[in-house]
Amino acid sequence: MGGSLALALQGKCAAVYGYDPDPSTLNLAEQMNLLDGLTGELANFTPQSDLVILAAPVMSILSLIDLLPECHPGSPVVMDIGSTKLRILQSMEKLPDRFAIIGGHPICGKEKSSLKYSEAGLFQGSSFVLCASLRTSQKTRIFAEEFVRTIGSFPLWMEAEKHDRLVAATSHFPYLLSNIMAAVTPEEAKMLIGPGFRSTARIASSSPGMMSDIIMTNRHNLLNQIRSFQEYLELMKTLIEDEEMEQLIGLLERGAQAYHRLLA
Amino acid sequence: MGGSLALALQGKCAAVYGYDPDPSTLNLAEQMNLLDGLTGELANFTPQSDLVILAAPVMSILSLIDLLPECHPGSPVVMDIGSTKLRILQSMEKLPDRFAIIGGHPICGKEKSSLKYSEAGLFQGSSFVLCASLRTSQKTRIFAEEFVRTIGSFPLWMEAEKHDRLVAATSHFPYLLSNIMAAVTPEEAKMLIGPGFRSTARIASSSPGMMSDIIMTNRHNLLNQIRSFQEYLELMKTLIEDEEMEQLIGLLERGAQAYHRLLA
Repeated sequence: MGGSLALALQGKCAAVYGYDPDPSTLNLAEQMNLLDGLTGELANFTPQSDLVILAAPVMSILSLIDLLPECHPGSPVVMDIGSTKLRILQSMEKLPDRFAIIGGHPICGKEKSSLKYSEAGLFQGSSFVLCASLRTSQKTRIFAEEFVRTIGSFPLWMEAEKHDRLVAATSHFPYLLSNIMAAVTPEEAKMLIGPGFRSTARIASSSPGMMSDIIMTNRHNLLNQIRSFQEYLELMKTLIEDEEMEQLIGLLERGAQAYHRLLA
Repeated sequence: MGGSLALALQGKCAAVYGYDPDPSTLNLAEQMNLLDGLTGELANFTPQSDLVILAAPVMSILSLIDLLPECHPGSPVVMDIGSTKLRILQSMEKLPDRFAIIGGHPICGKEKSSLKYSEAGLFQGSSFVLCASLRTSQKTRIFAEEFVRTIGSFPLWMEAEKHDRLVAATSHFPYLLSNIMAAVTPEEAKMLIGPGFRSTARIASSSPGMMSDIIMTNRHNLLNQIRSFQEYLELMKTLIEDEEMEQLIGLLERGAQAYHRLLA
């Protein structure tokens, strides 16, 4: 996500600097000529920047926020692009007042998360959720919207709580389903895999470390979503056990209609 | 599926005739110039055919099998392309001896099942399961393999029981997951739907009537798959409730590894 952002910003700002703690990622970024400067030391570049974008797994974003005050003496806008928003905004609110804060979440992405899959057009035409804190100024809001439009996305303002509740349903829970579905599929079934399974399973192998950060910072909403699903699946199972064809078809039609409403 | 088969067979056999009980489907097939002859009366065409392909929802295939003896005086090969195999083969075995029987299941398809989505290349490069009965002759087996290769697929011989058990995991259960996932997603989440949800939900709206036939003729295997999934999801839920990060990541990694083994 950070790599794609760097590509999307090329030529659209004075300079883009990159920080990553992993030397192999830095090497790859250098080979790809992705950035105007690179460092493995956070303090080296941030002092020069007007905008600091935190693009990392959620727990790493939380750690980076804690490090910012000693690395950056100025008054940058700090935006994160983590997948959950409430915990991160709460953490940003503890930053000194000189930091302008805003939460972001681009509604796009790939199941593969290495730098080498970076793509300038990744954000084109997608929604980009923006979550303000009470201390987020009007100036920062306008700047954030401009940033979002610059990379080709549409700003979508939302309360952090609401964002987290809804993405539990649209993103975090689908990942769990997909992951468990792969886990309970016997290996000998491999030759019978068609396009349906391929599509349903596509996000099963998203990075477990990155996903567990998301799960743990959105536990409450995710557990609610799991419980709703469990109830529904149990009902479906009972109808199948009892061969209640008509009710079963009715329930399957509800799912099909929901799909059409959601994806229309 | 029937429409795509007709397209894939064009120019590869003397003639392809089509039967459908629905007048609007017949009209559409005529407009699409899909077949050498069309009828709404089963008896009108089958007497001329060497191969009868039953392409319909499973319960309709079972009804068609019952009608065949009075419609076809000859000795055709009867092949179905239904999604479950055991019930259909058991039913075919009750046909008079003059019928040569074979079960088929192309491992391809689309989430949209109208004639208008027909595609000649649908079968290209896919597996095509063939299930023989004890009475299926060597001649019929060779004919079936030739048929499969003619439409660009690879024949994959399998016992009907095994086929049904494995497709419960690779096809029927993923459909249920996808359908229920859509049903439990709140409509206000619509704007937060990204490519992950889109992919996982893609098969949610497969025809409920067609799917309920499949579910009911593969109940036992599907229920086993549901139970395995329920156990796994319950375990995952407990780990999330208890914030057992390490074990959770281990479980998620198992799912990711299973995905890579299955899709490799």
